[in-house]
Amino acid sequence: MSKPSFAVIGLAVMGENLALNIERNGFPVAVYNRTGSKTDQFIRERAQGKQVTPAYSLPELVQVMERPRKFLIMVKAGAPVDAVIDELKPLLDPGDIIIDGGNSLYTDTDRRAEALAPTGLHFVGMGVSGGEEGALNGPSLMPGCSPEAYQELEPILTKIAAQVPDGPCVTYLGPKGGGHYVKMVHNGIEYGDMQLIAEVYDLMRRGLRLSAAQMQEIFQAWNETELESFLIEITAKIFQTLDPETGKPLVDLILDKAGQKGTGLWTVKDALDLGVAVPTIEAAVQGRILSSIKEERVAASTQLKGPGTDFEGDPQSFIQDLRAALYCSKICSYAQGMALIKKAAATHGYVYNFSEIPRIWKGGCIIRARFLGEIQSAYKRDPELVNLLLDEEFKQAIQERQGSWRRVVATAAALGIPIPAISASLAYYDSYRTANLPQNLTQAQRDFFGAHTFERTDKPGVFHHEWSA
Amino acid sequence: MSKPSFAVIGLAVMGENLALNIERNGFPVAVYNRTGSKTDQFIRERAQGKQVTPAYSLPELVQVMERPRKFLIMVKAGAPVDAVIDELKPLLDPGDIIIDGGNSLYTDTDRRAEALAPTGLHFVGMGVSGGEEGALNGPSLMPGCSPEAYQELEPILTKIAAQVPDGPCVTYLGPKGGGHYVKMVHNGIEYGDMQLIAEVYDLMRRGLRLSAAQMQEIFQAWNETELESFLIEITAKIFQTLDPETGKPLVDLILDKAGQKGTGLWTVKDALDLGVAVPTIEAAVQGRILSSIKEERVAASTQLKGPGTDFEGDPQSFIQDLRAALYCSKICSYAQGMALIKKAAATHGYVYNFSEIPRIWKGGCIIRARFLGEIQSAYKRDPELVNLLLDEEFKQAIQERQGSWRRVVATAAALGIPIPAISASLAYYDSYRTANLPQNLTQAQRDFFGAHTFERTDKPGVFHHEWSA
Repeated sequence: MSKPSFAVIGLAVMGENLALNIERNGFPVAVYNRTGSKTDQFIRERAQGKQVTPAYSLPELVQVMERPRKFLIMVKAGAPVDAVIDELKPLLDPGDIIIDGGNSLYTDTDRRAEALAPTGLHFVGMGVSGGEEGALNGPSLMPGCSPEAYQELEPILTKIAAQVPDGPCVTYLGPKGGGHYVKMVHNGIEYGDMQLIAEVYDLMRRGLRLSAAQMQEIFQAWNETELESFLIEITAKIFQTLDPETGKPLVDLILDKAGQKGTGLWTVKDALDLGVAVPTIEAAVQGRILSSIKEERVAASTQLKGPGTDFEGDPQSFIQDLRAALYCSKICSYAQGMALIKKAAATHGYVYNFSEIPRIWKGGCIIRARFLGEIQSAYKRDPELVNLLLDEEFKQAIQERQGSWRRVVATAAALGIPIPAISASLAYYDSYRTANLPQNLTQAQRDFFGAHTFERTDKPGVFHHEWSA
Repeated sequence: MSKPSFAVIGLAVMGENLALNIERNGFPVAVYNRTGSKTDQFIRERAQGKQVTPAYSLPELVQVMERPRKFLIMVKAGAPVDAVIDELKPLLDPGDIIIDGGNSLYTDTDRRAEALAPTGLHFVGMGVSGGEEGALNGPSLMPGCSPEAYQELEPILTKIAAQVPDGPCVTYLGPKGGGHYVKMVHNGIEYGDMQLIAEVYDLMRRGLRLSAAQMQEIFQAWNETELESFLIEITAKIFQTLDPETGKPLVDLILDKAGQKGTGLWTVKDALDLGVAVPTIEAAVQGRILSSIKEERVAASTQLKGPGTDFEGDPQSFIQDLRAALYCSKICSYAQGMALIKKAAATHGYVYNFSEIPRIWKGGCIIRARFLGEIQSAYKRDPELVNLLLDEEFKQAIQERQGSWRRVVATAAALGIPIPAISASLAYYDSYRTANLPQNLTQAQRDFFGAHTFERTDKPGVFHHEWSA
């Protein structure tokens, strides 16, 4: 068995699966876990007969490896990552590479990259998307690091990543936290996609009173259209899943309290700091927050009246409207995410090839979709595209569908069914295409009560008016 | 001239005006400014013949004052506040009181209060609202501190604050950063109010094609209704203001790029951290962000098509709808703000009498309004009110108006005029009153791709399903 140059530190399920993925692709791998019995079990069971070398301490791990060593840290984000780095650092030689594959906040990655730079060690912050299944069979990988480190890792990463017709789902995402930044926005976009689907589901369920079986058919059919994606596919599968005990559709028995692990929230907060509007993603985070106060909602539902209107149009045509509204909203959501990445590049010093970002999301990860190929094409047509909405194809796509989109927002308002993300997406589109928004009045008010001054449309300069005079 | 026990540090316009307010109310006041010439000018001009004692260094300031001394720091929020505190601290005696009257972030106030606690000095974080005019004639004051410090300050604060029929616009807002927290949320609510008015204006201007003169009449009339407020009043005044040069309505010549100074953004970020939904305030912040990318919007406006529909209903009846939509949205916005303050109290250890908060906003500050009396009554009826929407009066108010509100959202979607805050408010209302939101699907998806588990509606426990099996 040849000496491994690659190691995985942390054998929770993601770490185990990545180790097996690496080994399956022909690279011997060393593994270490703080609790040695976990390592033993892995070696005895899933790694049995494979080129996997166990180690029971970090010094031992370093010993069994060939230089330049590559360590993939798969431990909980935050302090545990720093602890592993601190322990590893004195054991290594210049040229060795430390990769953090967790969901780390990009500012932590920036900090770690800067701290390790003078040591001659390479630090890589790498977003890994695709969950357990992706880790084993091919995730989407989002590494940020020095070009040298990427060059050294490329042969492995391109093998273990998800493979799609135009290549492996990995690319070089520039220095420092650039990879983790893209992963964060990926997750924010994922929140948006899930919220948009939930809103469409709510209109089908409560507006059109469709059964799970009927919705399964619709989502399955939609998965052959411009909406084709992993999330639409699993939504169809969810609708056809019956609870083994009661025989009812399982989705109908699940509590409507959505959890969140923070990356959607990070995306929104960073967008606020950078001054980039991401209202669809924000509405998705708010949707989860409101879902979490279940007991308050149940109490309020008996007290606060709605319009009590039944849907009165043609259901088939409304289902077509929903499909169009979902697609238009999705375009807005991705436009926001990509605009955020663009601003982050300018602000945080990240460097991206914008058509590569949608490309590496086409396989392995949760938001994989046919649609990402369209975004990739948009940035190939114009690498400097200011906003996705301005691309010819997307412009056309919305133009053809906006009547439906507007009907959906109007219908939901009339029915009393909340669709915050679809509404926020429409408001984003309508705001973005408005040359003169009403914030001239806001500026007048601010100058009236606080002498904050204003600019004028007819001449340059900064002005104050004595309004109450 | 008697020896002052109160001093103002920092003689920008807010500091000068507060000093004059204090003196006018019968309290001699000492003043200090880092640049002495500013102090000289103040003494020579606005403070001439008044009981105002100048000092040209902090040791001198301390010398000229009677104990217990009270220092109101009116310098830029952030490091300058810490610098003044550090310089003052060694000069003072136990029982002296340092008040920070700037727009400080509540976490800074928490930190300063904790740092000063062992010294025997009192620290007060006090929100001051009302701009220059309020500072001079009576602001709304939001102090957070120890009960002892408040007792010592009460005679002065109750005099200098704005006076409304049920008392001065100041109350004790509990320990540490509790006052600055309420001020922050006040500002977030102010953002919401301004955005809601801007959206109504946009529908009047672009939807109904009303002139500034027509809108002046409408807003002036609205100021005699449930919408009566400072912001509605000044909006009417703004519409009647003509540009002296061109003779055109000045508002029509103002650039639609709204600035922001950060407190709205703080409110949204803190709400995200605390898991409280504030979608109306968030939409207001997003509205300002989108307003700021003027050049992008102008370019997009020639490329992205809207519905190009003219308003086809009865304008008079739509104006009534707008009034109702504005009031309903405003109720939602304040419901969010008060819910946030409630959660902050539980989380940050602040202590509030909830009916007092709307009371002290009834005068002096930007959001002063008849409506605040209604909120005050709601919390008097039920001091533990979970959400403003559940109060009988507000419940009724929305019930009567929601048809209009829904028509406004539907009409704006059809016309292509963005009303993100009004839409987000409606979605908030409809979400809050929904017992079963569609996040059961979100939880199913999360369990499908990430084994995140879910709860069930029919039995307790945490479950995972093998969906793809």
